[in-house]
Amino acid sequence: MTQLFQSEKVKDLLPKIYSFVKDEIIPHESAMLSKPFQESELLLNGLRDKVKSEDWWNPHLPVNLGGLGLSLVEFAQISEVLANTPLGHYIFNCQAPDIGNMELLIHHGSAHIKEQYLNPLMNGEIRSCFSMTEPEFAGSNPVLMATQAIKEGSNFTINGHKWFTTAADGAAFAIVMAVTNSNATRPYQRASLIIVPTTTAGFNLVRNISIMGEKGSGYLSHAEIQYEDCKVPIENLIGEEGQGFALAQERLGSGRIHHCMRWIGICERAFEMMCQRAVKRELSPGVKLGEKQTIQNWIAESRAEINAARLMVLHTAYEMEKSGAKAVRNEISTIKFFVADILQKVLDRSIQTHGALGITDDLVLSFWYRHERGARIYDGPDEVHKSVVARNILKGFGLQV
Amino acid sequence: MTQLFQSEKVKDLLPKIYSFVKDEIIPHESAMLSKPFQESELLLNGLRDKVKSEDWWNPHLPVNLGGLGLSLVEFAQISEVLANTPLGHYIFNCQAPDIGNMELLIHHGSAHIKEQYLNPLMNGEIRSCFSMTEPEFAGSNPVLMATQAIKEGSNFTINGHKWFTTAADGAAFAIVMAVTNSNATRPYQRASLIIVPTTTAGFNLVRNISIMGEKGSGYLSHAEIQYEDCKVPIENLIGEEGQGFALAQERLGSGRIHHCMRWIGICERAFEMMCQRAVKRELSPGVKLGEKQTIQNWIAESRAEINAARLMVLHTAYEMEKSGAKAVRNEISTIKFFVADILQKVLDRSIQTHGALGITDDLVLSFWYRHERGARIYDGPDEVHKSVVARNILKGFGLQV
Amino acid sequence: MTQLFQSEKVKDLLPKIYSFVKDEIIPHESAMLSKPFQESELLLNGLRDKVKSEDWWNPHLPVNLGGLGLSLVEFAQISEVLANTPLGHYIFNCQAPDIGNMELLIHHGSAHIKEQYLNPLMNGEIRSCFSMTEPEFAGSNPVLMATQAIKEGSNFTINGHKWFTTAADGAAFAIVMAVTNSNATRPYQRASLIIVPTTTAGFNLVRNISIMGEKGSGYLSHAEIQYEDCKVPIENLIGEEGQGFALAQERLGSGRIHHCMRWIGICERAFEMMCQRAVKRELSPGVKLGEKQTIQNWIAESRAEINAARLMVLHTAYEMEKSGAKAVRNEISTIKFFVADILQKVLDRSIQTHGALGITDDLVLSFWYRHERGARIYDGPDEVHKSVVARNILKGFGLQV
Amino acid sequence: MTQLFQSEKVKDLLPKIYSFVKDEIIPHESAMLSKPFQESELLLNGLRDKVKSEDWWNPHLPVNLGGLGLSLVEFAQISEVLANTPLGHYIFNCQAPDIGNMELLIHHGSAHIKEQYLNPLMNGEIRSCFSMTEPEFAGSNPVLMATQAIKEGSNFTINGHKWFTTAADGAAFAIVMAVTNSNATRPYQRASLIIVPTTTAGFNLVRNISIMGEKGSGYLSHAEIQYEDCKVPIENLIGEEGQGFALAQERLGSGRIHHCMRWIGICERAFEMMCQRAVKRELSPGVKLGEKQTIQNWIAESRAEINAARLMVLHTAYEMEKSGAKAVRNEISTIKFFVADILQKVLDRSIQTHGALGITDDLVLSFWYRHERGARIYDGPDEVHKSVVARNILKGFGLQV
Repeated sequence: MTQLFQSEKVKDLLPKIYSFVKDEIIPHESAMLSKPFQESELLLNGLRDKVKSEDWWNPHLPVNLGGLGLSLVEFAQISEVLANTPLGHYIFNCQAPDIGNMELLIHHGSAHIKEQYLNPLMNGEIRSCFSMTEPEFAGSNPVLMATQAIKEGSNFTINGHKWFTTAADGAAFAIVMAVTNSNATRPYQRASLIIVPTTTAGFNLVRNISIMGEKGSGYLSHAEIQYEDCKVPIENLIGEEGQGFALAQERLGSGRIHHCMRWIGICERAFEMMCQRAVKRELSPGVKLGEKQTIQNWIAESRAEINAARLMVLHTAYEMEKSGAKAVRNEISTIKFFVADILQKVLDRSIQTHGALGITDDLVLSFWYRHERGARIYDGPDEVHKSVVARNILKGFGLQV
Repeated sequence: MTQLFQSEKVKDLLPKIYSFVKDEIIPHESAMLSKPFQESELLLNGLRDKVKSEDWWNPHLPVNLGGLGLSLVEFAQISEVLANTPLGHYIFNCQAPDIGNMELLIHHGSAHIKEQYLNPLMNGEIRSCFSMTEPEFAGSNPVLMATQAIKEGSNFTINGHKWFTTAADGAAFAIVMAVTNSNATRPYQRASLIIVPTTTAGFNLVRNISIMGEKGSGYLSHAEIQYEDCKVPIENLIGEEGQGFALAQERLGSGRIHHCMRWIGICERAFEMMCQRAVKRELSPGVKLGEKQTIQNWIAESRAEINAARLMVLHTAYEMEKSGAKAVRNEISTIKFFVADILQKVLDRSIQTHGALGITDDLVLSFWYRHERGARIYDGPDEVHKSVVARNILKGFGLQV
Repeated sequence: MTQLFQSEKVKDLLPKIYSFVKDEIIPHESAMLSKPFQESELLLNGLRDKVKSEDWWNPHLPVNLGGLGLSLVEFAQISEVLANTPLGHYIFNCQAPDIGNMELLIHHGSAHIKEQYLNPLMNGEIRSCFSMTEPEFAGSNPVLMATQAIKEGSNFTINGHKWFTTAADGAAFAIVMAVTNSNATRPYQRASLIIVPTTTAGFNLVRNISIMGEKGSGYLSHAEIQYEDCKVPIENLIGEEGQGFALAQERLGSGRIHHCMRWIGICERAFEMMCQRAVKRELSPGVKLGEKQTIQNWIAESRAEINAARLMVLHTAYEMEKSGAKAVRNEISTIKFFVADILQKVLDRSIQTHGALGITDDLVLSFWYRHERGARIYDGPDEVHKSVVARNILKGFGLQV
Repeated sequence: MTQLFQSEKVKDLLPKIYSFVKDEIIPHESAMLSKPFQESELLLNGLRDKVKSEDWWNPHLPVNLGGLGLSLVEFAQISEVLANTPLGHYIFNCQAPDIGNMELLIHHGSAHIKEQYLNPLMNGEIRSCFSMTEPEFAGSNPVLMATQAIKEGSNFTINGHKWFTTAADGAAFAIVMAVTNSNATRPYQRASLIIVPTTTAGFNLVRNISIMGEKGSGYLSHAEIQYEDCKVPIENLIGEEGQGFALAQERLGSGRIHHCMRWIGICERAFEMMCQRAVKRELSPGVKLGEKQTIQNWIAESRAEINAARLMVLHTAYEMEKSGAKAVRNEISTIKFFVADILQKVLDRSIQTHGALGITDDLVLSFWYRHERGARIYDGPDEVHKSVVARNILKGFGLQV
């Protein structure tokens, strides 16, 4: 791991948190992933208590909100280490989608919303979800959306069909993207973000979608939801009417940094497992797998690619802090497809290095191989990001698009 | 699909079986894959009855054993079509590992074995499994093996630890590879194949291994097995003592043709789904996914690769029939890694074309993406096959290995 | 090499021609490629005389025109062997672009044209060229063309700018594509093919374009040509006015088969050199390059890909003979991009296997690496062929393009 | 280009030097590359004079030796910009192999050597070469070497056969690696570096090797040399006897940083040309090449990869300055193969984007495509670097190699 971006704070924190992940979380990893989420909650809460007692809770939040007061670049490096195991972020209360929702509410929630939704979220007492994607429309074109929130008296009445609402199962509330101003001239000003408690009548969780062989449950699930005449008070609006896309975009900016660092943390674990296997597995008496040149190629290429990925992401975070999210819009899209590709390659190589064991659920590799196949799809498919990046570059050369 | 290798028999059979697969099996596919295997058996048996009534049962067997009397090249093409859906082969009673076991018992089983094990297998009354791989040893080096069968009186006493014994759950018997002649000079002459009824004391099915998120059950499972003082009569030996590897090798020859054609059938289904999605999904009003050049690249490249794969496999089958399995040993290894690679690429592209839907279990793509990740590993990892092929070629140029 | 497509005729011819290529041509290869083409002509003519004396001259022509009367599938296999060395086809008088021009004149030339141009071409007394591509327009869109042929009295007056007119230097005549009917409703009916003797006033060979480091000369060159008030008699029209694209398309059909088989011949030579190097080069005393797994991967993958390429091309030729060029239009585009890609990969691996020697002109690999980089560009860039193939496939699924 | 590593000095220099390269050198590029080197020398010397008058001469040297006193990280960024055109470094007198030779002589040359060889080299009055690679031995294993320097009286008598001695044609002296201590216990302590003036009897330049179609000449050439009883005074030894490999290794460390930054400069120019072409070339009236998604993919991927490459190299240079060359040995090997691969991909995409024009020598792309194919071979083939990196990593996991 590069020291280039390591502040004193990070240099101090990283090895401690790394040890905690290795010694306190990973030993329970397999048990936690092999049973319904609820059954792990006791254990998880115990670990959360330890995190709190170490004063590591909410590492992403500013000091005045009880967090570690880290810069984006600093938190990114912590995030990588937490991602060495699937529930690392959860244990530190900085898991998606809650981390993004917290940021959103901090900056755009009313006092009432902060009181009622943000505070228990920051305390880890509740979970939340973000309900945006619709099955009938291409996620790559977010203005295509059928869910509507009609203002009636003091309420919004929401109707619509969402899916891939991550972690809705067991969440206390959803932040729903819905069209409120269908007549706005610009398509990007038609939708709003509205808080919907999951206990609201008409919030119908149809199912946890079975994804790559697993329905999952609780925090580890992705729901399909029907909003049927679902009424919530107008105060549940986040920010202004018509700001939905702008806020979601803002939420996505640092969100993509978080995703990418998480992927790098996964890569590092997969890389470590690949190396451990290579030095242990015998092909014939005395001949180790790691002596085969193909394995060596995979190790060298993976090392190069992970290093490159980390430098790219941290550099983007650094520029983002220096010049703002808008200035690095293209870099944000670039790391999205660049790192997602590397993630898949490294996981694939690590699995192949493990042979038959690699495809079993005895190892965490299979969990990631399945659940991170989505990395190239969610938050906009890589293909869309590539087009966006290229068109922006070509505009600079005079292309009129 | 090429007509080059299509005999009159195949020209007649293919469209009929294709229609049966499309109209009678695929509509039940999703239901069957989403519940425990046993719960599907009623439905599956009904479909098997239809197959029998059409006289398509056991298409791989010679006429005198009640089969269709197809050549390897002919059966390969039927096999491709059956592979358009995961349970196609099962419904025709030509599913691995039973198909390989039938071939083995036909050629090397004693009259007693044929009576007791082969006949009910051919009738579809029982299932079987093949118990070879051991977790402690690299599958790429089959002579590394710890399972032993000690002759004691009229019995073999078997002790050992196997895994990836496919479809052991619910099988009537296993064919076990065990060392019987540990002192044989050549390592390849130390093991034998022995039939072990799964009801034998000491045949302990430890677990169905959870693979890529699914434990599976019944025919759709892969077991870990402990053989503990497991005693079977000496008559359960298949062929001669010490012939284990030779017989397994023989079984693998046509087995790899079968695997490869199955992969091609999967590719064709994934390809068809990709095209259907491309013409249906809208990116914006009136603009179809299939108009994007990246999708077009995937379609053109997939078409080219699947066509190439099929020609390679059918050509190998054709040469195998003409010149024998030994003459095409290198071609057999070549198609193994060549087609497995294409399989993974085509599945990946089809999933990506489907976006979020592609990673859900609403489509069959996820099933294959998970369960066929093993294609590059089982029957020898691709890396081993590549080395074997290259060394054989280089021997022809004078390399001394 | 597969025997599947080998008729008795081919089985007899192939080894003989292969020996001739190895023993009579390749020993002179390096000398011929390292000096101006003219200086090699004496030697080349001697080899051509041997070919004539063996009755192998014009292998592509029907018997009544003095050729070998081979089917397309048969000639393709001869063509592969001739392509083991860059001047193989030339020595047999079946080199591009002359082979395509002969076919064109045989089917569409008037008696006068045959007498004056075809006969000396078939005798190897003259060479010809095909003048179509224009620097100002994308070759992928052939209807974009500025060259005009205006009928004035008994002449066409041609004005235009062409380049990549292969082998114009020293050719006796060019077949020029020019717009004759600019008002034709359909763009594809506007151009015609016209014979222009290179001695005509206004046929100005501007330069042999330096390509990948070499201007070349004579047959081994690619010219830029300005046609300036270049007048030729109306009888020099090939076929009918407005048929230019149709005839060029017809010429391209079998032309792509020829190109692809030529590329496969190049691959086989590069593959052989790679293997020879692998068994000879020592990395340390007693350790041969071919023992390294990376080299083994390249050899196995190359073997697989070349085999696949050959089966694809021969299968396409077979279908083309059975069902006509139109029926295999998509297959023709498919082999174009599929084989061009393999060609580049195999050449690259063979060069890398040779280390520093591989990039020198001491070996023929560098000649092909440079001159066949165009394979992915000429006759339509691979990217265009992929789009064409995909759109045709998607039309079958209902896409309206 | 990232600003992360840009000191004030670099921020000031970069745009000026960039303008000089664009405005003063690139306009002459095509003319200089299309004729023998000697014929360009008048022009080159004029440009060198301008560089001197701007006080940019010898940017790599410390201030006390008349250079710019740049850190490695700083110089690397200047080097990238100079590499936008093939003769940029030459014009600034920081071209390989002279730059490496200067560093070597500065640190290890005697006063006499500095006076006689280093000073005129720093003044640009003479050129030099480095004579190490031998055709009979794998460059990947540098201890395999047959050239010998026998001490006889006050002389070394050198006999041996070298090739790929870059820029020997016209050089004033060669630094020769030769075995002086064949009995040293450790193979790495057997050779020495010795200066041989090219006018010495027995220094026989056999030929400029024709590489990828060009023999080249002068600075732009790679020679084969026979050393036949070539006698030079013992004072011509650089450093100590037996230090040859250690010194060459030291020379290579920063040398690889230089190479990699040069490759990135090439990538940037190729990238710029690709974008310019994409916005200019029309596929049909009004439709620009840059609107095609495949081109967009290439642009986005190239942008990502070049950015990653630069961060990797500058980060390595930064660590090298902070912790020494030994600490970053693995990183040095990593950037070598990582950047060489990207270089080839970016060049290939830019050529393909230019279509037929891309393979002509009308553009500089062909020059690099040919001459940088060696990037994956020289200084150790990428395959060797990957093995080295992997084995070092695996040692950390306990592999005993």
